[in-house]
Amino acid sequence: MKFISNQRNLTNKINIAQRAINVKSTNELLRGLKISAKDGGLIISAYDAEISIMTSVEADVQREGEIVVNSKLFGDIIRKLPDSFVEVETDDSMNIHIKCLSSNFTIKGMDASRFPQLPKADEDSNIYTLDNISLKNMIRQTSFAVSQDPTKSILMGELFEVDGNKMTLTAIDGYRFAVKSSDIENSPENIRSIIPGKTLNEINSLLEEDGNVELRFSEKNAFFRINDTLISARLIDGEFIDYKKLLPREHTTRIRVNRRELLSSVERAALLFMSDKNNLIKLSIEPGALTIRSNSDIGNVHEVVDIELDGNNLDIAFNSRYIIDGIKHIEDEEIYIDFTTNVNPCVIKSIDKDEYTYLLLPVRS
Amino acid sequence: MKFISNQRNLTNKINIAQRAINVKSTNELLRGLKISAKDGGLIISAYDAEISIMTSVEADVQREGEIVVNSKLFGDIIRKLPDSFVEVETDDSMNIHIKCLSSNFTIKGMDASRFPQLPKADEDSNIYTLDNISLKNMIRQTSFAVSQDPTKSILMGELFEVDGNKMTLTAIDGYRFAVKSSDIENSPENIRSIIPGKTLNEINSLLEEDGNVELRFSEKNAFFRINDTLISARLIDGEFIDYKKLLPREHTTRIRVNRRELLSSVERAALLFMSDKNNLIKLSIEPGALTIRSNSDIGNVHEVVDIELDGNNLDIAFNSRYIIDGIKHIEDEEIYIDFTTNVNPCVIKSIDKDEYTYLLLPVRS
Repeated sequence: MKFISNQRNLTNKINIAQRAINVKSTNELLRGLKISAKDGGLIISAYDAEISIMTSVEADVQREGEIVVNSKLFGDIIRKLPDSFVEVETDDSMNIHIKCLSSNFTIKGMDASRFPQLPKADEDSNIYTLDNISLKNMIRQTSFAVSQDPTKSILMGELFEVDGNKMTLTAIDGYRFAVKSSDIENSPENIRSIIPGKTLNEINSLLEEDGNVELRFSEKNAFFRINDTLISARLIDGEFIDYKKLLPREHTTRIRVNRRELLSSVERAALLFMSDKNNLIKLSIEPGALTIRSNSDIGNVHEVVDIELDGNNLDIAFNSRYIIDGIKHIEDEEIYIDFTTNVNPCVIKSIDKDEYTYLLLPVRS
Repeated sequence: MKFISNQRNLTNKINIAQRAINVKSTNELLRGLKISAKDGGLIISAYDAEISIMTSVEADVQREGEIVVNSKLFGDIIRKLPDSFVEVETDDSMNIHIKCLSSNFTIKGMDASRFPQLPKADEDSNIYTLDNISLKNMIRQTSFAVSQDPTKSILMGELFEVDGNKMTLTAIDGYRFAVKSSDIENSPENIRSIIPGKTLNEINSLLEEDGNVELRFSEKNAFFRINDTLISARLIDGEFIDYKKLLPREHTTRIRVNRRELLSSVERAALLFMSDKNNLIKLSIEPGALTIRSNSDIGNVHEVVDIELDGNNLDIAFNSRYIIDGIKHIEDEEIYIDFTTNVNPCVIKSIDKDEYTYLLLPVRS
């Protein structure tokens, strides 16, 4: 294998592929990038059990071939080279020679034939198209609510649904859930799959603000095409909770409140908790005023926030961390919070749009 | 005690005082800020064994008094309050009531009379004045070479000298040393003190680009006045190494080299070392060219850098980390490196100025 490529392009694409590398993998091959040089350019591939990334780089390929190289070492070297042309050549002993201006590296490569086969989408499968920013928002506004509990493997993923012209992501961790929808243009078929939260976060980091992403699904994988990068996400087997059943049908108390003011007040009330446990804050809802109280060994706080109340007065308690998460991930200036009783979940949503819902269980105080 | 102050001013000054807080201190009082309200304003003080900070805040003091409050909790609360006026009041049970718009906190205070006395400068002691940027550079260009070895307590400090019109900071860790001087206007008396490196780094972070700093010395402490903040640094007892004796009197090889090119080449050569040990790079100096080589289990590299050579050819080896440190902390575009033999130290310095010297011991390869 021998090729010449541009240092900057190569660096960018290595950065992309490295998102699929699990540096803690005990399998040396899986800490590697596979580089395939074919007439017309390079394909850089990376793979771990949950995610694979394949991206292409322009290059002048002088001899075709492929090799696997330690991702960190190769990435660090290419990144540190001057912004110029880089020549990469392998020899019969699987050494990789890297030249750039007056820099010359020789590092060990690994046998590319031992690198795992990456999952591939069926050429005939349906394509769903979505703009990057919508997918970014869907991931950003839900993925924080993915469960971190490895005994609940299904809840470590998000439910990815296509239903008619609506694409929806849902994350649940047992105490709260976050749902975000976007309209899509083409919806050849309904979909219901579970994608690992960690993979969605990697995809989010690869999405620029502009452009579109193309999605395909197979039985075992979801595929995301972002420009010339193809990502596969291994789906989680199992049946996701029917979250729609958890949504209260009605509310008896609705408040309308400035989101930033509420967020600041709850964040201040949470300051009295030095640890993650027992972050209990109490809300008292009356016409015109929401009073937030919290108590701990180190002091107490009460905060008053202006609200518009529609419905009954209510006293209810929440874990401050979970209520902060919900308020933080809405963008609107004002939000609604709907309640029924102090043992039923509340629902946080935006004023105008029906696209985002955050449901939160209260704490019995 | 009762006062009203501005949230933003108070936050800024808490941020300053917190630099002297050791959050790991087992003494609750030393994790606290002492707030003294007197006619005209507040004094916020913080103290640990090595450093104390005292800073003043404008406030409308309605009842004089003083209290100690947990630094983290008080800082977090004030920082999160809205940008408005904050009322702070203590009661007879040493509770502290904090009010700001519709936020109300009550937290526990501690008895201020138990707070340690801060070191004070003798009113008659000499004052040395230096511009902030010079002191910042002196600290930045030397403190990285302070020893981290607690068994060498003297070398965990920097030698602070005033000799005639020259102020000099020197750090040595046994393998290399860094010396930086600045001219000062007034030099009432020569000084030779050892200031902990950690304290100097805190002082650096408090220095803005503009303005001047005033220094005083007592037997046990150095005092730095930066605007309305007074910092005391406990001096380290003992005799600092006579670094001037270590400086080679002459050189038989001098190279002139572009600093950034050399830095990049050495950084690349260092990439082959995954751990901190044995980071050996070999330099071969010939007319016009410096060749850098390194070898490790994972590969080898050679780099060529253009130089101007004055003197003899030389082969010499260094720990790459130490040579990188030295080159990184000079600002000049081109530098000199002076050598004698491959078992004697080399000296890195700027082309124009005589103010900075970095001495580095070679490794026998």
